[in-house]
Amino acid sequence: MPSISSPGATSSGAKRGRPGYDQATVLKIAVQAFTEFGYDATSMGMLAERLGISKSAIYHHVPSKVEILRLALDSALTPLEAVFSDAANAEGDALQRLRGAVSGTLRVLFEQQTSVTLLLRLRGNSEVELAAMQRRRALDRHAANLVSAAQAEGSVRLDLSASTVARFLFGTVNSLTEWYRPGGNVTEEEAERTVLAILFDGLVPRG
Amino acid sequence: MPSISSPGATSSGAKRGRPGYDQATVLKIAVQAFTEFGYDATSMGMLAERLGISKSAIYHHVPSKVEILRLALDSALTPLEAVFSDAANAEGDALQRLRGAVSGTLRVLFEQQTSVTLLLRLRGNSEVELAAMQRRRALDRHAANLVSAAQAEGSVRLDLSASTVARFLFGTVNSLTEWYRPGGNVTEEEAERTVLAILFDGLVPRG
Repeated sequence: MPSISSPGATSSGAKRGRPGYDQATVLKIAVQAFTEFGYDATSMGMLAERLGISKSAIYHHVPSKVEILRLALDSALTPLEAVFSDAANAEGDALQRLRGAVSGTLRVLFEQQTSVTLLLRLRGNSEVELAAMQRRRALDRHAANLVSAAQAEGSVRLDLSASTVARFLFGTVNSLTEWYRPGGNVTEEEAERTVLAILFDGLVPRG
Repeated sequence: MPSISSPGATSSGAKRGRPGYDQATVLKIAVQAFTEFGYDATSMGMLAERLGISKSAIYHHVPSKVEILRLALDSALTPLEAVFSDAANAEGDALQRLRGAVSGTLRVLFEQQTSVTLLLRLRGNSEVELAAMQRRRALDRHAANLVSAAQAEGSVRLDLSASTVARFLFGTVNSLTEWYRPGGNVTEEEAERTVLAILFDGLVPRG
């Protein structure tokens, strides 16, 4: 998935006919509206109004509202699946691979914050949402497996449940969607450094 | 705020005339609908239907939809404010008071999960929401002050920003609203033990 570009810019992603907007921009505006008003409360008419185009023109860019949802969820899930696949197949110890998965998840969040936010708020009200939630649960299992592997090699403490640890690790990362704003006080580097420091080393100084 | 009681049960909180439901139950059903459909998309008619009473009967329990919102947000904010006020005024070192604030926030979440979830999802679309968000920002400042105090006494590492640490600490706690289910696989005790262990001591074994 290419990064979201501004109206009129040329995207390296799928571009459908109509000049002025590329599909990535239409998706971005749509996903912002979904997270603001909820998917069900957002109509194609509202999206057209936000884009300043007619309701029929929006169908030049995307075939339907549910297809926007599917594409948006895919733009979060596909890179997240790549992160966990890379972590599972990478060389090195399990602790390093677990840290890599946490960093990789953060990077996806920075690049696709609105889509990740949408993914985190799904309620399972349609087949598209249920399919995305199933893919998300598979990621949770991959995360728990990484924690288990690190426990087995002795690099993560054994007195905590791997699946509960995995939930908190990625809950901590995902909590950024609630407050992180690009260009705000906290840089991506500071956010990554802080989350890795807290989760792996803890707040209390060592040694 | 009393704990939420079942239909027909006697609440120690405000009870308005009509038998069958107490105000706490009406609030609970309403807040569940707000978090499920969004505040704006939820009508008093929908709430009456969920309660199995007429639309006019619901006004025997609560004066208006915005008043339900105000009461629900208050039922999360008032105990959270008490947690941070207690932590600020408690005896003992700052690290112990910070741990107490994390544990106390978790306890409020367990007792008022739907109201806390509602608080976390506010968008600032009304004066009631804006007032609640202002109270929430005051809590963020209290949290950052507790982290700073622990850094000053040397019990929390100095290489991280107090305000960023505070955001992650309480982001981690709040992430429970996304997956914690009472009576599920993870008990309140395990959740508290895990969150304190990860945040303060880290996943990598010490010493």
